[in-house]
Amino acid sequence: MSKSRLMYLPLGGAGEIGMNCYVYGYGPEDAERLIVVDLGVAFPDMDTTPGVDLIMPDIAWLEARKNQIEAIFITHAHEDHVGAVGHLYERLGAPIYCRAFTANIARRKMSEHGYSENSVKVVGPWPETVKKGPFEVGFVPISHSIPESSGLVIDTKGGRIVHTGDFKIDVDPGVGEPFDHDLWASLGKDGVKALVCDSTNVFSKEEGRSESTVGPEIEKFLKDAKGMVAATTFASNVSRVRTIALAAERAGRSVCLLGRSMKRMTEAAKEVGILTDFPNIIQPEDVGNLPRENVLLLVTGSQGERRAASAQLANGKYMGITMKEGDTFLFSSKTIPGNEKGVIHIMNQFSELGVDVVDDNGGLYHVSGHANRPDLDTMRDLVKPQTLIPMHGEHRHLREHVKIAEAAGTQGVLAVNGMLIDLSGNQPRVAEFIETGRTYLDGSVKVGQFDGIVRDRIRLALNGHVIVTLIIDEDGDPLGDPWCEVMGLPETGRNNAPLVDVLEEDLSQFMGRANNKTIADDTKLEKELRQIARKTSQGEIGKKPEVTVVISRLG
Amino acid sequence: MSKSRLMYLPLGGAGEIGMNCYVYGYGPEDAERLIVVDLGVAFPDMDTTPGVDLIMPDIAWLEARKNQIEAIFITHAHEDHVGAVGHLYERLGAPIYCRAFTANIARRKMSEHGYSENSVKVVGPWPETVKKGPFEVGFVPISHSIPESSGLVIDTKGGRIVHTGDFKIDVDPGVGEPFDHDLWASLGKDGVKALVCDSTNVFSKEEGRSESTVGPEIEKFLKDAKGMVAATTFASNVSRVRTIALAAERAGRSVCLLGRSMKRMTEAAKEVGILTDFPNIIQPEDVGNLPRENVLLLVTGSQGERRAASAQLANGKYMGITMKEGDTFLFSSKTIPGNEKGVIHIMNQFSELGVDVVDDNGGLYHVSGHANRPDLDTMRDLVKPQTLIPMHGEHRHLREHVKIAEAAGTQGVLAVNGMLIDLSGNQPRVAEFIETGRTYLDGSVKVGQFDGIVRDRIRLALNGHVIVTLIIDEDGDPLGDPWCEVMGLPETGRNNAPLVDVLEEDLSQFMGRANNKTIADDTKLEKELRQIARKTSQGEIGKKPEVTVVISRLG
Repeated sequence: MSKSRLMYLPLGGAGEIGMNCYVYGYGPEDAERLIVVDLGVAFPDMDTTPGVDLIMPDIAWLEARKNQIEAIFITHAHEDHVGAVGHLYERLGAPIYCRAFTANIARRKMSEHGYSENSVKVVGPWPETVKKGPFEVGFVPISHSIPESSGLVIDTKGGRIVHTGDFKIDVDPGVGEPFDHDLWASLGKDGVKALVCDSTNVFSKEEGRSESTVGPEIEKFLKDAKGMVAATTFASNVSRVRTIALAAERAGRSVCLLGRSMKRMTEAAKEVGILTDFPNIIQPEDVGNLPRENVLLLVTGSQGERRAASAQLANGKYMGITMKEGDTFLFSSKTIPGNEKGVIHIMNQFSELGVDVVDDNGGLYHVSGHANRPDLDTMRDLVKPQTLIPMHGEHRHLREHVKIAEAAGTQGVLAVNGMLIDLSGNQPRVAEFIETGRTYLDGSVKVGQFDGIVRDRIRLALNGHVIVTLIIDEDGDPLGDPWCEVMGLPETGRNNAPLVDVLEEDLSQFMGRANNKTIADDTKLEKELRQIARKTSQGEIGKKPEVTVVISRLG
Repeated sequence: MSKSRLMYLPLGGAGEIGMNCYVYGYGPEDAERLIVVDLGVAFPDMDTTPGVDLIMPDIAWLEARKNQIEAIFITHAHEDHVGAVGHLYERLGAPIYCRAFTANIARRKMSEHGYSENSVKVVGPWPETVKKGPFEVGFVPISHSIPESSGLVIDTKGGRIVHTGDFKIDVDPGVGEPFDHDLWASLGKDGVKALVCDSTNVFSKEEGRSESTVGPEIEKFLKDAKGMVAATTFASNVSRVRTIALAAERAGRSVCLLGRSMKRMTEAAKEVGILTDFPNIIQPEDVGNLPRENVLLLVTGSQGERRAASAQLANGKYMGITMKEGDTFLFSSKTIPGNEKGVIHIMNQFSELGVDVVDDNGGLYHVSGHANRPDLDTMRDLVKPQTLIPMHGEHRHLREHVKIAEAAGTQGVLAVNGMLIDLSGNQPRVAEFIETGRTYLDGSVKVGQFDGIVRDRIRLALNGHVIVTLIIDEDGDPLGDPWCEVMGLPETGRNNAPLVDVLEEDLSQFMGRANNKTIADDTKLEKELRQIARKTSQGEIGKKPEVTVVISRLG
């Protein structure tokens, strides 16, 4: 029997922020028993993934080892950690373990895909553990921006790994367990092989601030505001939703929740018993019965999402409610890079309505859910790992995180997606590079990042499309002239001649001089027609379009 | 003869940041003589304008009044102020006036379009003026982030207008004239009808900082850095380029310029005599002959532009130069909203190379070229206008600017693109709403924002494209079955059946049951085939593609 290996393999989330998926293994090399930590999604954008619905990690490596997988553990219910469970569950075929709030969200996703609720098992907080194969795994409560976030203690005969999940150090988080320094220190007292640690805020130099600092500021803000106020934050940040709602209550404002996820998340938190002091809410249809200065709308869409409540309010109306001159809109949130234009669009629409917009104002109305640099130091000091492996970050975050660990005397390993790290020895090493990537959910189909489908759509968007059709008769002679249709291109080019006319003219001329050999050869004919269409377009409109040639041969 | 009217009409730049174009008129109503201030461009993005090369203001209103236009005045050489001169000159047919540095840039653009250099006239600084029709216009030096920026004094019998152009208040700007409080106060002493004023930084609450504060910080930074350093800023910010180059010299580093515009801009500044103390530069091929710690690369691409020097260095190599572990890359710039992802991409690429990246670090290595809120107050206090008209801002900026002016006792007018403001009376009023918009340069063709071309390309990118071809014979009968090609769609859908096969099957079945009336009617047939193709696609791949139907009728 070969020696057992303890391994770590990130398939998503290491070298990017999004679609988290980490694999741990223990057992004989290449036959390790495996567990998966998190199955998240990332979100598409027009620049790189137009028309794509969701982005998931490529789990081909895992799927090929389906019978080695013991279980899936989900650290918390953010989409970038739990979003792919429904989409990928069948290909992994292992039970899912998480805490109650996370399970509530995960089960909804599983149901949507027709899976039983039993596929998701609820685990209580540490010291409760789950034993699966060579692993014993416990969920250690940790503060973050969603209820019941947990770090994982992963024990094997090869040693203990502590996987932080997303976290901040907050001893007064509002909802859920405060960060417990003693508990985290206790995890490290018998030695920790590796601390696999959130890196999101490694560039933020000040100690992170507690959720409890936000409430008084928002309360003051709501008392000072004259008209109706709408406030937005991530609905999953139940603690913030509560902070704002309680501040509203103290400021004499009734709370109305707008947006489906706002209701879903607060309900989930109430169902699992962690949200007990939420004020009574009023319904949208009752808002009009109250003086504006007694209303606080709590709305979805902090990132400028087009269909969210915030965007619809900015656009004029949502659920019969309109905002107007004298009202205020508060972003109790930070704009994620890439979402700036959408958020700014909403701000300008509110401006047109006469609504004042206030953003987080340098942190007065928002605090981050991730550990800043000094907090990462604290975590490392508590757990005292042999090795620090940064995760949940772009390359620059991981690199910086390794640097600060090594500067403090802890060895660090920069492992990006696909690097299989052997943790068995004292010196972790890169054992293998696994081919990884992204899987796109496109409509109802999963396509690979490099399948060329999305690349073709980007080309269509940049270059437009010319379709050339040509009929060849039974005798192998062209029947009539080639025919063009265009999409996404100017109708007229140079000298105001219609582009289609010029294209058809040039293509016809070519057919007139083409020899039988060319005409008999689909591949050659297609290539020639495409080239002419591109060249003519370049001359007419200064653009080389995508060209599809359809040759129909009769008989 | 009707009474003369003094009017203001923004066609670009008011309600957005970009493509500045402002019109002033004086004379009998609807027959005013006109001047145009700035002819700028905005830049396309994948979200809203894929494949577009440049965005310009729609100048149809001006073109229809071509014979009323006296002149075009360009305040400074930033692309959003001068970028469209070559593209729109012919449609306006009026001479272009600007200061020497701006003229240098404008003439290059005009030459590229085959126009004579004489179309651009150089004007000296105030008190020199240009008299055109009822206008007397002077260029008043003002500090900004490009040499020879100017505010305009526009005198008519209907009163004086002061148009600030883009500006900051900097009494030690490095290159060009310091801001002169006395001069600006003198402009207002006989009364100013309207101050048309930059609004970009109205939300920045602290007084703006001088360019002169940047040099010492960068010098210290360059002295402390160990290996090679590359620094990026806008090449047009000649003052910053100089600041960095002089800091490098003091830090014992030779300067190498990388990127075409870096050379073009410094040359232009030297040609017009405003850059006299720039250190000697070394050529890219000499970089390798120097110790790394004695080199400073000054590179283009501060916004993450894909083809700029910064992106190529991040990608591995530019002009034979590579950066590596121990080197540092400095952003002496701020990321413009919308460019975050491109900038972050470069940062991560540098991280992969082991290159440390430092950004403006809360303003240590960069200062803005626009006036902050207290500076806007200063400007208003100096000029003492009857009316403040904010420009160069999104709606939220203009609205805020009006608010602060009115809070300080100056009436403000919120005028967005297309609002024709009558400034003749004591109370400015919106006289008319002009239809405005954007013109896209798409390849070599100018297309209108609402022509549908770009919208079609966006649809192709989101939905993919199905092309259905069908041949109808001389007797009006289908010749063979409909034929499909797809682009940008998954090859296989549900149950792994090829999408094209399923589409062709469903379309053939339809043709089999279609009656002669349908088959004889192109419009109807097309509509039916499109609907089937969309419905089948929805079922197979969960997506409704764009469908082009090509029906070829023989004989």
